[in-house]
Amino acid sequence: MHESSFTSIDDLTDRQVMDILQLAEEYERDGSSYAGKGRGLIMGSLFLEPSTRTRGSFESAMLRLGGGVISVTDAATSSIKKGETLADTARIWSGYCDLIVLRHPWEGTAKAVSDFADVPVINAGDGGNEHPTQTLVDLFTLKKEYGKLDGLSMAICGDLRKNRAVHSLIYALLRFGVDSYLIAPRGSELPDHIRSRIRRVHGVDAQSEKVGPFASLFRADPPVGAGAAIPEQQEINLDALYVTNTESHQLTLLSRPGKRSSRSLTGNERFTLYLTRRQQERERPGEDSSAFYLRVTKDVLRRPTFKQAIVMHPLPRVDEIAREVDEDPRSRYFKQARYGVPVRQALVALITGREKWSSPSERVGVRKSALGIGGMACANEMCVSTREPASASRKFTLDQVDGVSELECRYCGKECTAAASCFRRGVHGVVYHPISKITKADIEGERELFVYATVKEAREDGLEPSASYAEPSVESIRK
Amino acid sequence: MHESSFTSIDDLTDRQVMDILQLAEEYERDGSSYAGKGRGLIMGSLFLEPSTRTRGSFESAMLRLGGGVISVTDAATSSIKKGETLADTARIWSGYCDLIVLRHPWEGTAKAVSDFADVPVINAGDGGNEHPTQTLVDLFTLKKEYGKLDGLSMAICGDLRKNRAVHSLIYALLRFGVDSYLIAPRGSELPDHIRSRIRRVHGVDAQSEKVGPFASLFRADPPVGAGAAIPEQQEINLDALYVTNTESHQLTLLSRPGKRSSRSLTGNERFTLYLTRRQQERERPGEDSSAFYLRVTKDVLRRPTFKQAIVMHPLPRVDEIAREVDEDPRSRYFKQARYGVPVRQALVALITGREKWSSPSERVGVRKSALGIGGMACANEMCVSTREPASASRKFTLDQVDGVSELECRYCGKECTAAASCFRRGVHGVVYHPISKITKADIEGERELFVYATVKEAREDGLEPSASYAEPSVESIRK
Amino acid sequence: MHESSFTSIDDLTDRQVMDILQLAEEYERDGSSYAGKGRGLIMGSLFLEPSTRTRGSFESAMLRLGGGVISVTDAATSSIKKGETLADTARIWSGYCDLIVLRHPWEGTAKAVSDFADVPVINAGDGGNEHPTQTLVDLFTLKKEYGKLDGLSMAICGDLRKNRAVHSLIYALLRFGVDSYLIAPRGSELPDHIRSRIRRVHGVDAQSEKVGPFASLFRADPPVGAGAAIPEQQEINLDALYVTNTESHQLTLLSRPGKRSSRSLTGNERFTLYLTRRQQERERPGEDSSAFYLRVTKDVLRRPTFKQAIVMHPLPRVDEIAREVDEDPRSRYFKQARYGVPVRQALVALITGREKWSSPSERVGVRKSALGIGGMACANEMCVSTREPASASRKFTLDQVDGVSELECRYCGKECTAAASCFRRGVHGVVYHPISKITKADIEGERELFVYATVKEAREDGLEPSASYAEPSVESIRK
Repeated sequence: MHESSFTSIDDLTDRQVMDILQLAEEYERDGSSYAGKGRGLIMGSLFLEPSTRTRGSFESAMLRLGGGVISVTDAATSSIKKGETLADTARIWSGYCDLIVLRHPWEGTAKAVSDFADVPVINAGDGGNEHPTQTLVDLFTLKKEYGKLDGLSMAICGDLRKNRAVHSLIYALLRFGVDSYLIAPRGSELPDHIRSRIRRVHGVDAQSEKVGPFASLFRADPPVGAGAAIPEQQEINLDALYVTNTESHQLTLLSRPGKRSSRSLTGNERFTLYLTRRQQERERPGEDSSAFYLRVTKDVLRRPTFKQAIVMHPLPRVDEIAREVDEDPRSRYFKQARYGVPVRQALVALITGREKWSSPSERVGVRKSALGIGGMACANEMCVSTREPASASRKFTLDQVDGVSELECRYCGKECTAAASCFRRGVHGVVYHPISKITKADIEGERELFVYATVKEAREDGLEPSASYAEPSVESIRK
Repeated sequence: MHESSFTSIDDLTDRQVMDILQLAEEYERDGSSYAGKGRGLIMGSLFLEPSTRTRGSFESAMLRLGGGVISVTDAATSSIKKGETLADTARIWSGYCDLIVLRHPWEGTAKAVSDFADVPVINAGDGGNEHPTQTLVDLFTLKKEYGKLDGLSMAICGDLRKNRAVHSLIYALLRFGVDSYLIAPRGSELPDHIRSRIRRVHGVDAQSEKVGPFASLFRADPPVGAGAAIPEQQEINLDALYVTNTESHQLTLLSRPGKRSSRSLTGNERFTLYLTRRQQERERPGEDSSAFYLRVTKDVLRRPTFKQAIVMHPLPRVDEIAREVDEDPRSRYFKQARYGVPVRQALVALITGREKWSSPSERVGVRKSALGIGGMACANEMCVSTREPASASRKFTLDQVDGVSELECRYCGKECTAAASCFRRGVHGVVYHPISKITKADIEGERELFVYATVKEAREDGLEPSASYAEPSVESIRK
Repeated sequence: MHESSFTSIDDLTDRQVMDILQLAEEYERDGSSYAGKGRGLIMGSLFLEPSTRTRGSFESAMLRLGGGVISVTDAATSSIKKGETLADTARIWSGYCDLIVLRHPWEGTAKAVSDFADVPVINAGDGGNEHPTQTLVDLFTLKKEYGKLDGLSMAICGDLRKNRAVHSLIYALLRFGVDSYLIAPRGSELPDHIRSRIRRVHGVDAQSEKVGPFASLFRADPPVGAGAAIPEQQEINLDALYVTNTESHQLTLLSRPGKRSSRSLTGNERFTLYLTRRQQERERPGEDSSAFYLRVTKDVLRRPTFKQAIVMHPLPRVDEIAREVDEDPRSRYFKQARYGVPVRQALVALITGREKWSSPSERVGVRKSALGIGGMACANEMCVSTREPASASRKFTLDQVDGVSELECRYCGKECTAAASCFRRGVHGVVYHPISKITKADIEGERELFVYATVKEAREDGLEPSASYAEPSVESIRK
């Protein structure tokens, strides 16, 4: 396993993120500053899911640094289709290149591959999970514009459920003190496991309106029916409006909530979604007539909230941003796309050791202790540990929040809410315990653990409840 | 929009064409002459239609210059399939590379992309429209052989209807004084809009046998039945025989005219098509028995007309040239294919500014004034303006020949013959006029124009005929 | 035709193989030793069959040498699908690159392409025929481990029928004095034409147990039922265990022989196959219950025979090697995969003239005299001469063994056992002769020959038997 893989935005310390942004700024300003920095390096550009933008951006970055690229652009022509495991792919490509850039449809794949690779692995998108280099580009765009991140305010609007770029971005904004407002059509809100992770890691309760440095507005119920109302007491001067598409790049912001909101407008909202006319021609007979279509247009940008907000988008867009906005001086999405090259140049140069981190003792991608457990598997069907257990054995990280232990899949980051009980061999014998009794010390000791999704399964395995299992709350709560 | 795109052979002045041929000759002669000329440059090689030859040739050219290449070889794995517009693709790839080489199935796509790109765009084939770098290679082959172009004579034979390479070539031969004889099976003759353009731009009437520097023989009716008869007064000593395949690289010269020509041979023709035996095994029951199959063989080349004619072909061939001709000392098609590299090296070096044009004040790809009009769209189904209006708004160029105005689609070059009437707001009020009254001055003034395909549509829009519309000829002529 | 193509392991002399291994060792040890050796060179990487490993390895080799690469990775996007012949492809790509690396599904394709290319062609796998660079990697792995080849002993186990890597390997081991033991499930034994070639070329009778430097054990009948018995008198201390997959990289060592062997074990065998439990879940109702599944596991490696045997595999593996073996100190397959880069670097540098062979007068790929004959075609349906006669005219090499002439297809190497009679125009007139009367002198004189698969065909062609055709044995034997 190589110690410098970048599979999640969490793999970088704040200082490392700042190193990348600063180096990217230098590279962007002065083409001679990076000349020859990648000479002799080879990037394995493994895009096992369609992409041209991200791949083009990475390959351009490597070529500009003076290095070479080997491209694999289609899983259909690759040995991955022949039954080769990700683990074998990782080992073999470690011999062909100095750096693996990986896009893959399964969640957590970059992490699994980095476990077996001898060269750094960069996650260029793993299913619906993360797209952390996009996040670096987004942060760079903000910093380039405002010279800072702390104290900025940004609205993120669109499909927040499946868009991996948004998930990485939200984690990063929390860390760098950017106030975020999240607006999504009903059904496209931020998924529970992301909200839960935000709560655990950043102490921000996604239900409250302003906690710590991060003010979120989870107003999806109903943020959009006739408009999203920002609470009156909040003065919003947005610095940036971030519009997203869906993870799969399909038509995205088209969503049809069950019912039109009956909530009335307050009259002094400054942050309102623009609703275009009903797309009746797209509806089938009998469909709910409250369907709406979210779009950013010149009209939308006339509202005071957006007066000074730059407009960002990870691209490709479909039509969530009207073409007339392209000419607006606040549009930044094409610039943002171009910033992808210097940012990825900086990342590649630093991660391959051709440039130095400001604090060399900090490693990239330090792993959290993870439980290797028996019994329970990640419940996420798209998780690499579900799809290919040979390359990603069941591992979880453990957090204890308010005395309650929670397991999070080490690969895809999904919470394993069904972890009802567990059992530690040799210490407690053949009894099962509440999950809440597991501690980080247990993990660091790497004791052998079995976790069951339900008490029923533990019993079928011949186990009896421990004394501590008297707590009926756990059993009832967790089924 | 970048000012140095090469989307049509018309984008280059004569002097620029000569610059390219001369530089290519130097590059071809002496490998050290181009060493490092492309260092640090990146070519975006976007081939959204199958190709290996043209792509291989372009990528070889860039690598030989010392530059790098990012390849996109299949639309299926690209974001173009995700609904991204050509306009967005153009803007984004401008940030990844210094030069875009584009092949695309739609006609006029290179021009549309060049409107939005910040880097030069080279057309590597846009549907059935043009393939202008092939034309440069063809001219280079002639010049290499004969040291000149002016005064040469060439027969172009095969499918002249759909072969884009031929269209660009014919325009170029007209400009450089090469006499051309065009021979095609019935149904594969040069399309009307190409003939019309030749008439408008070069003053050559495709129906006449020899006009100006260009002598053409549009004898498709019937040039081939039992043989094509060259008028007696013409002494033909061909310098080159150019054989083509179809645009789509399918079996090409196989054509079945309705009836065998009853025209008798003159007895002293020196330029005859060789007709191979009926391919009865390829005919379906009931098909016309006059089917013929055009092929260049050793026997064909024994005729006096071809005595000193080099044999050219843009490749790939299927079997329009028999393999036995490969060994003939007059065959040039494999050499011609190889000339693709130095010619494209020279083009790339000049267009990216790494080499200097002899007349730096002449720009590449100077745009003609084009009408942005309402009302009428290009009638070509494969035109980029039909396929993706978001990236190619309806624009036409206007020519006035003998007092008659003709509109030509700015993208695909097709004549819009249905332009029956037009209307200029604010000047003439709510009346419609004959198309012939539009002048170039109107275009340069960029007045708001509406053009209707038929008078009926103008009337449905509530317009009345203007006084000048009394001319019945126009209305009757143009429906 | 370029004189330095590497289409078969037979194209290299022993000295040339050693040159490659030695140079590869230098390259592998010291990265500075090859710096810039490939500068200015372009590799045409034509992979017209899915592959990532071999392609990645070749492209990495070229990039590390400082050269450039043009990749064609899918036949579907290439002009090969448009009816272009291999001959034309060879000629055209000779102009684009300095070296062609070719993978193709047809057997003998690399040889056919090398006939028309002006640059060296390297066979990166041609159907089920050969994969000679894999063999160089295998030899390198052995030499790297033991410092020598002569006198080593290796067992090759798996699908020996369709695995092209194994065929090339066996030829090479014979040449370099490595004792080989071949073990295959019933139905996956070495094909007859390979066995026959071994007999002809190396004088080794595949039926005997130890002949000359090569001791083979063709014990497929039945080597595996309950275990393969090594003859008692043989003391086997294997130096290497070579496990293969199938040629098509499908699930491989899964085979179902008709009946379980009734042969009893001798009791002192030291070389036994490990049979995993019946894969009943994979069998369909009614299937033979003696199905077995061959697999290398930790348990297998505990046997004395394997005590010091390194474990090799050309990869990708499916599950013929258990993952638990990955951690075993004897596993070499991942190292072996990585050796692919220095070995291919050395091959490329030598074959392009950037490094010098120790004996410059020896050419690479010297062609044997081959008969260009009429009448008979290669009977192999996957042979390039069957698939595309235009690029691979019927040619055979002739061997006379014990007075019997045998024809071997020049492309795919298959014996043409049906060569029943032949005819030499001008010398013997209109009579047919037994095939055994043809001599090498006839070939060198390049007399016009016709070979018929059966006597019947010769007669239908109007021929009469020659006097020498009295020999009834030939006629009866061969028809």
